[in-house]
Amino acid sequence: MIETRTTPKTTLSAALLERMNAYWRAANYLSVGQIYLYDNPLLKEKLTPEHIKPRLLGHWGTTPGLNFIYVHLNRIIQALDVSMIYIAGPGHGGPGLVANTYLEGTYSEVYTDITQDEEGIKKLFKQFSFPGGVPSHVAPETPGSIHEGGELGYSLAHAYGAAFDNPDLIVACVVGDGEAETGALAASWHGNKFLNPVHDGAVLPILHLNGYKIANPTILARIPKEELEQLFIGYGYKPYFVEGSEPADMHLAMAVTLDEVFEQIKLIQQEARTNGFTKRPQWPLVILRTPKGWTGPDNVDGTQVEGTWRAHQVPLAELASKPEHVLLLEQWMKSYRPEELFDRDGKLIAELAELAPLNDRRMGANPHANGGALLRDLLMPDFKTHAIPVDKPGTIQAESTSIMGGFLRDVMKLNWDKRNFRIFGPDETSSNRLSRLFEITQRTSTAQIVPGDNDLSPDGRVMEVLSEHLCQGWLEGYLLTGRHGLFSCYEAFIHIIDSMVNQHAKWLKVSRDLSWRHSIASLNYLLTSHVWRQDHNGNSHQDPGFLDLVANKSADIVRIYLPPDANTLLSVTDHCLRSRDYINVIVAGKQPELQWMGMEDAIKHCTAGMGIWEWASNDEGSEPDVVMACAGDVPTLETLAAVQLLREHFPELKLRVINVVDLMTLQPRSVHPHGWSDVDFDMLFTKDKPIIFAFHGYPLLIHRLTYRRTNHNNLHVRGYKGEGTTTTPFDMVVLNDLDRYHLAGDVVDRLPGLGSRAAYFKQFLHGKLLDHKAYISVHGEDEPAIRNWTWTL
Amino acid sequence: MIETRTTPKTTLSAALLERMNAYWRAANYLSVGQIYLYDNPLLKEKLTPEHIKPRLLGHWGTTPGLNFIYVHLNRIIQALDVSMIYIAGPGHGGPGLVANTYLEGTYSEVYTDITQDEEGIKKLFKQFSFPGGVPSHVAPETPGSIHEGGELGYSLAHAYGAAFDNPDLIVACVVGDGEAETGALAASWHGNKFLNPVHDGAVLPILHLNGYKIANPTILARIPKEELEQLFIGYGYKPYFVEGSEPADMHLAMAVTLDEVFEQIKLIQQEARTNGFTKRPQWPLVILRTPKGWTGPDNVDGTQVEGTWRAHQVPLAELASKPEHVLLLEQWMKSYRPEELFDRDGKLIAELAELAPLNDRRMGANPHANGGALLRDLLMPDFKTHAIPVDKPGTIQAESTSIMGGFLRDVMKLNWDKRNFRIFGPDETSSNRLSRLFEITQRTSTAQIVPGDNDLSPDGRVMEVLSEHLCQGWLEGYLLTGRHGLFSCYEAFIHIIDSMVNQHAKWLKVSRDLSWRHSIASLNYLLTSHVWRQDHNGNSHQDPGFLDLVANKSADIVRIYLPPDANTLLSVTDHCLRSRDYINVIVAGKQPELQWMGMEDAIKHCTAGMGIWEWASNDEGSEPDVVMACAGDVPTLETLAAVQLLREHFPELKLRVINVVDLMTLQPRSVHPHGWSDVDFDMLFTKDKPIIFAFHGYPLLIHRLTYRRTNHNNLHVRGYKGEGTTTTPFDMVVLNDLDRYHLAGDVVDRLPGLGSRAAYFKQFLHGKLLDHKAYISVHGEDEPAIRNWTWTL
Repeated sequence: MIETRTTPKTTLSAALLERMNAYWRAANYLSVGQIYLYDNPLLKEKLTPEHIKPRLLGHWGTTPGLNFIYVHLNRIIQALDVSMIYIAGPGHGGPGLVANTYLEGTYSEVYTDITQDEEGIKKLFKQFSFPGGVPSHVAPETPGSIHEGGELGYSLAHAYGAAFDNPDLIVACVVGDGEAETGALAASWHGNKFLNPVHDGAVLPILHLNGYKIANPTILARIPKEELEQLFIGYGYKPYFVEGSEPADMHLAMAVTLDEVFEQIKLIQQEARTNGFTKRPQWPLVILRTPKGWTGPDNVDGTQVEGTWRAHQVPLAELASKPEHVLLLEQWMKSYRPEELFDRDGKLIAELAELAPLNDRRMGANPHANGGALLRDLLMPDFKTHAIPVDKPGTIQAESTSIMGGFLRDVMKLNWDKRNFRIFGPDETSSNRLSRLFEITQRTSTAQIVPGDNDLSPDGRVMEVLSEHLCQGWLEGYLLTGRHGLFSCYEAFIHIIDSMVNQHAKWLKVSRDLSWRHSIASLNYLLTSHVWRQDHNGNSHQDPGFLDLVANKSADIVRIYLPPDANTLLSVTDHCLRSRDYINVIVAGKQPELQWMGMEDAIKHCTAGMGIWEWASNDEGSEPDVVMACAGDVPTLETLAAVQLLREHFPELKLRVINVVDLMTLQPRSVHPHGWSDVDFDMLFTKDKPIIFAFHGYPLLIHRLTYRRTNHNNLHVRGYKGEGTTTTPFDMVVLNDLDRYHLAGDVVDRLPGLGSRAAYFKQFLHGKLLDHKAYISVHGEDEPAIRNWTWTL
Repeated sequence: MIETRTTPKTTLSAALLERMNAYWRAANYLSVGQIYLYDNPLLKEKLTPEHIKPRLLGHWGTTPGLNFIYVHLNRIIQALDVSMIYIAGPGHGGPGLVANTYLEGTYSEVYTDITQDEEGIKKLFKQFSFPGGVPSHVAPETPGSIHEGGELGYSLAHAYGAAFDNPDLIVACVVGDGEAETGALAASWHGNKFLNPVHDGAVLPILHLNGYKIANPTILARIPKEELEQLFIGYGYKPYFVEGSEPADMHLAMAVTLDEVFEQIKLIQQEARTNGFTKRPQWPLVILRTPKGWTGPDNVDGTQVEGTWRAHQVPLAELASKPEHVLLLEQWMKSYRPEELFDRDGKLIAELAELAPLNDRRMGANPHANGGALLRDLLMPDFKTHAIPVDKPGTIQAESTSIMGGFLRDVMKLNWDKRNFRIFGPDETSSNRLSRLFEITQRTSTAQIVPGDNDLSPDGRVMEVLSEHLCQGWLEGYLLTGRHGLFSCYEAFIHIIDSMVNQHAKWLKVSRDLSWRHSIASLNYLLTSHVWRQDHNGNSHQDPGFLDLVANKSADIVRIYLPPDANTLLSVTDHCLRSRDYINVIVAGKQPELQWMGMEDAIKHCTAGMGIWEWASNDEGSEPDVVMACAGDVPTLETLAAVQLLREHFPELKLRVINVVDLMTLQPRSVHPHGWSDVDFDMLFTKDKPIIFAFHGYPLLIHRLTYRRTNHNNLHVRGYKGEGTTTTPFDMVVLNDLDRYHLAGDVVDRLPGLGSRAAYFKQFLHGKLLDHKAYISVHGEDEPAIRNWTWTL
């Protein structure tokens, strides 16, 4: 929260602005140095090709603007004593953020070998985009960052996620005009309809128009200013323009603008926190228009560079063969007058160093940007109190996700005062049967609410927006700043954020190796309304392929759970909400379905990850004739129905039923920490008996997880093979050969000893399938015998 | 193009509006009937539960609005004699589009069993959301659609794609206010900066504010009207509001508005086509605000339904148990007065039927919405003229994609007058080395162009926007309306449109089975700046997982090519551009790299899909000791460098080198039509010798493609295992054990007969790796011996 104190305007003076300009020059100098210099970091000697890196990697274009913003936010932090973090949307701004966190001292504290002297600057320069060094983007390695800048589009969603429930935090979010063209970013501006000034922090978007992408102008830089202004008023902001290229003028304009902008933020927050939320405020937004590659080489080899797309990467190239470029580089770097900025030993002079905030107020050191440092365990209610009593397996029905919804409600309740838990989803919380959450909270909206709206409030803690990108981005921002959450989504549409998951997985993987980054809560997904029960929607809503994407990630990051019923879902959910640094994917159905396990059994089963269901098997400890394995609620149902059929028709057959909850148990232990040892795996799946595996997703995923297992050659997997349409639940499994009749047929196909009885049985199964097709073509729903099937053995 | 004729205003009359209202009632009646009725389609008998479907699936909420728009567009088509297609963004509007294409007669022409009589209406009703029937969304099955409505967000991008190079076409695009929250849609409004009224058609966006999603209000319905207006002015449109709920008033308001809107479009096009392009016009946009579930039940069981989220799906449920709901349904359907609309036989009365346009002017029959009907083959230049001469393999370098750029330029040139070929990409055409295209065309922009802009023009045919969603959506729209194109993208970021690929693949799969849908040109990807050569960008830009996503699709839809050099890339590109109904993924590097094959060999190799490289092998027709396989340019280089090492150190070893261009050859023929027979596969890969396979992507993809092959147990795959950072090209392969030293070591590990020489060799390899690490840590680039390595055998 912004405290009331001497208004910041009085702190502005020509002398201060001059010093800020010098600080900016220092940041720019260090940025150019990172891109180019291998040695001679303070230019004490004449610059020669030997001082220059052989491979010039990195991006200058956006950097001076990012540096400019940083120094101005530093002043505000000092003047107002506010807690602020800096999200750098233009990902290629790595050198700028590294330079600034170095100047403020954070960098040397985190990386103690990068000292505040000439030797430290030399290392700082060398490591940048150097093998084993730091990337060109803002990344986990960058202190103060919660944002992997490599893939554009997510800065503003992360910013809103960071601001929710952080009333004292201001999230400055620089949005590049290139990034602004992405879908995710274009949707993100609407985050202001979900931010409540009473208990959330502030997001200050700074749209940085430097006009160009790699080779092209940007859209927003090439529409009339009036359109641009109306666009952002339309998005609900109050835009403030700061435009120009003359540093002195720009410093003054930026400082005056930021004073006004932060005054606005203070007033909005004071009003809301004094009088309560009344209406969505018009939050300020800054539009900063500066030349791309500002203060860099104006013209190179007769071609304009500053202010064009040519400044995007390295404005001066081929330095080994062009001595005149070496001279230009030296002139460019010397134009920042490093000798005025750093003392003889390479230390930033005190007069400039004091412009940076102190301690945790430094944006590189703000604990919100190392969210694990602030993370507190969720208080966990006892999930067992939500258990469904299951006296006999497969006889009662329940909506598994509905049971889970009750548990989530209690988690929400128990942590209510801490405000550190939110649920995210694209308008599907009720559809996904999690509506018990609405017994205690509501959906969030700070836009207009009218009579008749259901469970909607500016104070809601369920975040619904019809954009998977925003759900994912908000949740990531929320987690990265040290809180907890869960994203519930229709299974097929989680593919919309495949690439965001990739980037978050990369973030987690790199962060693991950074001792100074603290663990954060896991990113938890509930995927429901899944491929097998899209009765309403059909083909377009049927895709279980997200599991394949996730399974490609590092084993120390990802977990996939397929609880077959409500009690296993409860156990898995409890486990996921307690975990750290993972991506947990839970797939579970929302429709009424048979329940298999009592709570104690469910806990044991989930802890093991997979196991034999003795009550369904009749191998009684001996080697079975065939193994029937299943993973996922619908495949489990079909497997058990097939088992019942087989046991009725072939009572002498020894069947073993295995249910897999934790998919990663299938992998060898050398590959995944959850993987079962080969000995244990072979005990379960046998070394040479046929295995019929009914799987929720694409069958090949099971093959690739198990291809090293002893008995892989006898493994036959049924799953989704891309066949789908609007049809009945049972017909959907029939279309993909995953139904009880196909599974039973698969078994007898692999047991030649059954002789002519097998042929008779196959005819029987074929007749059943024909009956099914005939029935649904008339009635439009499955036969009662299918709908009402229960376990009767 | 809109012809000048009697201005449409004169065609408006109260009588006409009354008839249009009756037509709308007919469409609404047929929509409700599809959702509910199993029998008694004209309500000639009293409605009973037996007439009602047992499972009520479908969505009423958006439908009356879609129907309202359809009847009004019909009037405009008649009045102005324009060619128009209708894209229904609110996907759940399936019943509305089915109803309207039935009323206009298209549906019965396409599906001849759905006749224009009572029996036909009964079938029309029954098939909807019925097993084996038609889906609840607009889909391939829906005449007039180019749009799979199930996954929201892509309507407007498809609309712009359809309009490019179709000067006589008007694309009416209804955007739902739910859909408008998605990232893809939020970015799509900017399509107007890429549309040139001289040679492109018009897009008329109609934002349909019905206010609610499944359970929630929408953002755009809950911001003040002034904000909404400014948002769209900011997006560059001229918004026209049509708001209300009283049908008579609304018909008049909509008709008057559309007259003005189409007048605007005509003026914009006339001006541009007379005087040439001068500046981006302010295209009109309609904002239609109507109640959700308009004309449906107002109040059910004491709860308001019309105008709320409760009207989203089926406003009346539980009809079997609630007789009063049956009565309400009957009253609701009878409120449309079907007896006035259909004659005794169930045929729409002539007075209404004549409101629909005739023949191809009907939106359901417009050939642009069955684009294959308009598709003409590309004129193909001889790709062999672009061949790089390769006298000896592995001795000269070239940038493969740069060579491809020359070929694409010639394709563009040869088809210049036809205007049926465009290249799409997110600001990466030059970065991806396709810049030879700019010798003949430019990037497209109808926004401001200033001196200094490079290769930028309102007439350009290279579509660059920093949004993979727009690139994909535009290309899909362009292909679906019968044209050709290619999307070039950084490999890692193609994951951004994973879910769009899923939906397009579903579209292609379903369309194959619809005899009336004509084949369209394939969706072609060039993925470059790939995982192994992201020297500048590092970890965030490294991900080859798109191949896994694509490989999950139906075998009759997808093709994956990994040409190892320029000549194979040319051959593959030629093949892909000629193909139909596929998704072709080509992965190829842009950096200078060694060239392996002369043109004739390249063609043979690509035709076979994989083969032995005799010149690199020394098994000379006999059974080899080991098979060295590779797929992808960088793995091919490392494999050959490993082979050279092995042949130097172990000249007696018999090595066979196999290069795979067409990844699908690895699958069994029973699975994919490109798959090699087991006999041929075994001839190539042997039945029992070790295979070391160096792969471009995740190793498990090779395992899952080959797990049924005889020799799978001896297959050892190296590929991307998730290790990445900013480093040198060679270090990147080292980090993932894909380098020549690891590969050579993998070979000797599998040949126990080598004895102590193997141990010595492994030590030598280990030393090489240490040398490499030491060298890059000092120099920041790879050793000259690595950089300059060539094939010398």
